[in-house]
Amino acid sequence: MSFNTFGKIFRFTTWGESHGPAIGCVVDGCPPNVPVSEKDIMKDMNRRRPGHSKFTSQRKESDNVKILSGIFQGKTTGTPISMIIYNEDAKSRDYETIKNKFRPGHADYTYFLKYGIRDYRGGGRQSARETASRVAAGAIARIVLNKFIGKKFNIVGAVTQLGILGCDKNNWNVNEIRKNSLFCPDKKSVKLWEKYLLAIRKVGSSCGAIIELRASGIPAGLGAPIYSKLDSDLAGALMSINAVKGVNIGAGMGSAFLSGEENSDEIKGILGKAKFKSNNAGGILGGISSGQQIVASFAVKPTSSILSSRETIDKKGRNTKISVRGRHDPCVGIRAVPIGEAMMSCVILDHYLLNKAQCG
Amino acid sequence: MSFNTFGKIFRFTTWGESHGPAIGCVVDGCPPNVPVSEKDIMKDMNRRRPGHSKFTSQRKESDNVKILSGIFQGKTTGTPISMIIYNEDAKSRDYETIKNKFRPGHADYTYFLKYGIRDYRGGGRQSARETASRVAAGAIARIVLNKFIGKKFNIVGAVTQLGILGCDKNNWNVNEIRKNSLFCPDKKSVKLWEKYLLAIRKVGSSCGAIIELRASGIPAGLGAPIYSKLDSDLAGALMSINAVKGVNIGAGMGSAFLSGEENSDEIKGILGKAKFKSNNAGGILGGISSGQQIVASFAVKPTSSILSSRETIDKKGRNTKISVRGRHDPCVGIRAVPIGEAMMSCVILDHYLLNKAQCG
Amino acid sequence: MSFNTFGKIFRFTTWGESHGPAIGCVVDGCPPNVPVSEKDIMKDMNRRRPGHSKFTSQRKESDNVKILSGIFQGKTTGTPISMIIYNEDAKSRDYETIKNKFRPGHADYTYFLKYGIRDYRGGGRQSARETASRVAAGAIARIVLNKFIGKKFNIVGAVTQLGILGCDKNNWNVNEIRKNSLFCPDKKSVKLWEKYLLAIRKVGSSCGAIIELRASGIPAGLGAPIYSKLDSDLAGALMSINAVKGVNIGAGMGSAFLSGEENSDEIKGILGKAKFKSNNAGGILGGISSGQQIVASFAVKPTSSILSSRETIDKKGRNTKISVRGRHDPCVGIRAVPIGEAMMSCVILDHYLLNKAQCG
Amino acid sequence: MSFNTFGKIFRFTTWGESHGPAIGCVVDGCPPNVPVSEKDIMKDMNRRRPGHSKFTSQRKESDNVKILSGIFQGKTTGTPISMIIYNEDAKSRDYETIKNKFRPGHADYTYFLKYGIRDYRGGGRQSARETASRVAAGAIARIVLNKFIGKKFNIVGAVTQLGILGCDKNNWNVNEIRKNSLFCPDKKSVKLWEKYLLAIRKVGSSCGAIIELRASGIPAGLGAPIYSKLDSDLAGALMSINAVKGVNIGAGMGSAFLSGEENSDEIKGILGKAKFKSNNAGGILGGISSGQQIVASFAVKPTSSILSSRETIDKKGRNTKISVRGRHDPCVGIRAVPIGEAMMSCVILDHYLLNKAQCG
Repeated sequence: MSFNTFGKIFRFTTWGESHGPAIGCVVDGCPPNVPVSEKDIMKDMNRRRPGHSKFTSQRKESDNVKILSGIFQGKTTGTPISMIIYNEDAKSRDYETIKNKFRPGHADYTYFLKYGIRDYRGGGRQSARETASRVAAGAIARIVLNKFIGKKFNIVGAVTQLGILGCDKNNWNVNEIRKNSLFCPDKKSVKLWEKYLLAIRKVGSSCGAIIELRASGIPAGLGAPIYSKLDSDLAGALMSINAVKGVNIGAGMGSAFLSGEENSDEIKGILGKAKFKSNNAGGILGGISSGQQIVASFAVKPTSSILSSRETIDKKGRNTKISVRGRHDPCVGIRAVPIGEAMMSCVILDHYLLNKAQCG
Repeated sequence: MSFNTFGKIFRFTTWGESHGPAIGCVVDGCPPNVPVSEKDIMKDMNRRRPGHSKFTSQRKESDNVKILSGIFQGKTTGTPISMIIYNEDAKSRDYETIKNKFRPGHADYTYFLKYGIRDYRGGGRQSARETASRVAAGAIARIVLNKFIGKKFNIVGAVTQLGILGCDKNNWNVNEIRKNSLFCPDKKSVKLWEKYLLAIRKVGSSCGAIIELRASGIPAGLGAPIYSKLDSDLAGALMSINAVKGVNIGAGMGSAFLSGEENSDEIKGILGKAKFKSNNAGGILGGISSGQQIVASFAVKPTSSILSSRETIDKKGRNTKISVRGRHDPCVGIRAVPIGEAMMSCVILDHYLLNKAQCG
Repeated sequence: MSFNTFGKIFRFTTWGESHGPAIGCVVDGCPPNVPVSEKDIMKDMNRRRPGHSKFTSQRKESDNVKILSGIFQGKTTGTPISMIIYNEDAKSRDYETIKNKFRPGHADYTYFLKYGIRDYRGGGRQSARETASRVAAGAIARIVLNKFIGKKFNIVGAVTQLGILGCDKNNWNVNEIRKNSLFCPDKKSVKLWEKYLLAIRKVGSSCGAIIELRASGIPAGLGAPIYSKLDSDLAGALMSINAVKGVNIGAGMGSAFLSGEENSDEIKGILGKAKFKSNNAGGILGGISSGQQIVASFAVKPTSSILSSRETIDKKGRNTKISVRGRHDPCVGIRAVPIGEAMMSCVILDHYLLNKAQCG
Repeated sequence: MSFNTFGKIFRFTTWGESHGPAIGCVVDGCPPNVPVSEKDIMKDMNRRRPGHSKFTSQRKESDNVKILSGIFQGKTTGTPISMIIYNEDAKSRDYETIKNKFRPGHADYTYFLKYGIRDYRGGGRQSARETASRVAAGAIARIVLNKFIGKKFNIVGAVTQLGILGCDKNNWNVNEIRKNSLFCPDKKSVKLWEKYLLAIRKVGSSCGAIIELRASGIPAGLGAPIYSKLDSDLAGALMSINAVKGVNIGAGMGSAFLSGEENSDEIKGILGKAKFKSNNAGGILGGISSGQQIVASFAVKPTSSILSSRETIDKKGRNTKISVRGRHDPCVGIRAVPIGEAMMSCVILDHYLLNKAQCG
């Protein structure tokens, strides 16, 4: 059972609302004796946090992570690591306008139907602010994987589709991703993307995005058939991110259009080592990693909070309208890149540990 | 933890290999006092089982389900329901040819790397034969949901894309799906699809497919944020099916291409009841069902076993070739329809029970 | 999986070390719309906290619980409730003396062997300070049960054996338990117990205790056979409390000495209602509550930190001696009463919710 | 969640009723490449099975275990091991007499209240017949531990108290336990015990028992604080066995009567290795194994089915009487020895694997 807990061995539990005093998470099952510092974690946090580019929400959060337990003399002790992030810019703007209305595309309506009560301030628990906690947990997973696997390990995500604009994935460049504010991997697409997104922002609209994640250096053998397959767990993990509506592994939905000849990745033995001639499988066969690069992608729907007036109902079921000003990302997909990386890091570490248990 | 167990409250554990004496599953957490018979279960089993159409594998299995426990005087007792299905047509053909080779696109290679041992007969545990157990468990879930929700409840799946051929989803017809062997919902597409698939079969090739699932009558409020969201659990469940590479909820991957205005489903109050004007969300907002139809789809890659000679390696890492004759489905996606329905039934029942626990 | 998480539906995760900045817990799965305040929680906290009687540790902790999430306008929202308790009196005394030695009876040695690193300050994570978080979680469970079951619900614990001194359980008086500092239920025993414990404290020794818990008003039908039986879960829960070495349900270990005639509780029908003529079963049959009072007891070993010099080894395996001064309870069993109540409250609420899921 | 599933990594799910066609279990998470045969499993099965001594039930069951999956060419493959045991001697005696009555001390009443339906034939699911499945699973755990730990590993149980008769535990002799039908470890007590039990059986009465389990060769470091402590999991596991009412670890309930000086086990360094001077802790400190012998004991209540007429009620709440003839053990505690060993084997293997995951 896991309402607000993710993972099997390496587990994290998140808590907190958009406009409460703080949010945070508790990471459990982390291996001991791994050097972890708040500074290390901030590297990932800074990539997700809002307020530092014109393409993301103007909410200003430093997202400083404070570690409250589980680290002793700079190292993990194997006990739970509690992290807290204070909410700093939770504006006391007029919630009265949305307090009794259900914003279309948001979970206002479903939270209210489920629980009969909802914290309407900034969306409360449904807010993507929760994902800051995921990034903090994912940062620790990444550090542990780095220690265990070494230099060849790497997890990188990028936006490969911004609304109607694609990019050339053959130009995938990790340095480029780090450089531009849109996590675009293709230098040639950046300018156009920026113009496009500014235009969308200007008119108060929004667009969706596709994010691709690539994990290198992952050992073969990770993943536990039948119901904890690596791809199944990745799909669940990525689909749990706010606004995600689709998940692909390798060729993904596109595999439906391929023939058996095109799709199945042939294997070559080179000096006794298996080399695959293609990677439609996305590095996973039968739910188990094959040693190839693991490739997953996911679609983020366009931000639901837009300027246009939208039809909706209020708590009493009466017809009304709503239009959301406030601080919002014109494309929530952009900041989903470090979140996707975080979830992938956690899933892979979890299976790394799990595999040690049964097959180590 | 759940290697071979699926679910939280309503759980099932499957066991068995393609060429062992039997396969089966144990369903746990089923509510008591629900009338369940082997005959009821066979309705779903017959839709999945091989050997009864020219479009599926010629392996002949009656797939008779025998209930060994948990039913007393025709009703569930709340104790585990053990079901067994004997393997009847596990041919003792020459496994020597594939015993030491890894079939491309299959999990031969990864199972061997993970476990250091593998049952190579028909793929052993990785075989889609395991999905018969899922259908048996799903049949019970469906019966329970029928009892709890009543007549308006329905879960129907169909193939909406067969390789490169689509169909007109506006012609979605439940009776048509039941009638043709391809689970095609659009009467106008059936003939062409049949020709296409026979041609593929004839040349020993294979094609992929997209399956769409629609659940009606599902109450609002099901789904447990943040890490047991209804869509997240559906994604994990569907991705766990053999050969699935992509999962969409509602507009799915396509939502990336929409604007905020196009995507977010407006709400109208009609006689105090919420009516959504569209369903890009696929009936799920913030991981919780909204009362709309729940719509999910998934892509199944083309069957990896094909006639063409393919490059691969053997257990010693030496280069070799393989071509698979034997009995295979030209499109494994077809028989995935009842499997998808089964998984969706289990996920929805599970959340139905879970919701009673916290919010009932 | 649950290293630092307890429960199935109503779950709590605790974190924090004895001498870190704070400890805390995250309660997940709490039903929505239940009025919960910090003040309510403090009622239970105050019964456990140290420093307010001569019979407990002189460490001064106000144990103020601060709620960081999950409560909106005074009510639970169904989202995780994060609670934090700052450590105030974590004395910077000379840890050098125990830093490299393993205190006999404590978990210094095993933590070090397991993790290869340990926070030696006050025992770190192994300290009973962690139990403050349990009491906070248990306080919420109690509030929910009170709301659901109503007035007849009650969980009360008492010390029924203090070292070699017993008491007359026929004199069990709930008001008396609240009145004296030793949680003694029998007014006639209090004075002698106090003298005995002061003498033990004076010589720097310690004694064990037996705590009995009684839960009234619990509905029949709670408990999930076979591996989540109510008594099995209670046993696991109570045995997880620091220093507990034995758990009894009803007649407990003593049932071994009874005959079948003496032991099995006969049933009388009174106005169509079942009345048991005795309660050797402790209110649980086949792992399911019978509607009788649920009775469990557990033994707490004597405090391991004592004045006498004890033989032990250091980190390098060298023989050495240790004697512990510092602030300690002469009988840790006393403060275990509210902890036991908390754990029992959580187990019963958990099964209450679980039963709604499967049989509600 | 785990209604009928036990364990975390090494897990087993049991199913089946006393008078259904069969019972069985599915073992999941077993490490691959371990030689396992039905014959190996039968060694443990034969020690539990009824019908082969005058001190146990006359129900004749060969308890032959048939393996249906998970073993290939004599070795585990890492996939689920399904085992089935057919019920052979499920007598069609007149169930009408107990069909509508609740047997005191049994779970008839609570199962009926919980589920609203019960399989009354031989107690259905509540029957101790289920424990045959545990012994089968435990046999596999023992084989795996033997392979991993080697010769020094051993888990042995014995009856140390038979009703009012104790024995001298200083005479603990493993060969003696194997020799007599009462699992008595002290040769000097056997004769008296036999006389005593035959007398009890003759008058149709019953007695309780205490079973002690000793595990040798267990590595230090097993056990996961705080809520999966080794002792906590052992307590839950043993309390889940039918008719168990109390569990002790090491000094157990008796530790309440000790002083701190008597109780805490001093440590001596001998050639750099820790040697404990006593074992009141039962080999577990802070929930983690210390490398000492792990010692646990549990009390089994007297068989509730006795000849004497007992007061009870029927399904309609009317007063009635019942006396149970049929086939019953005069002391169910005796056959609990191999069951206790099985549960301990499973818990220890589970923590062995779990420890590899986090700290391996």
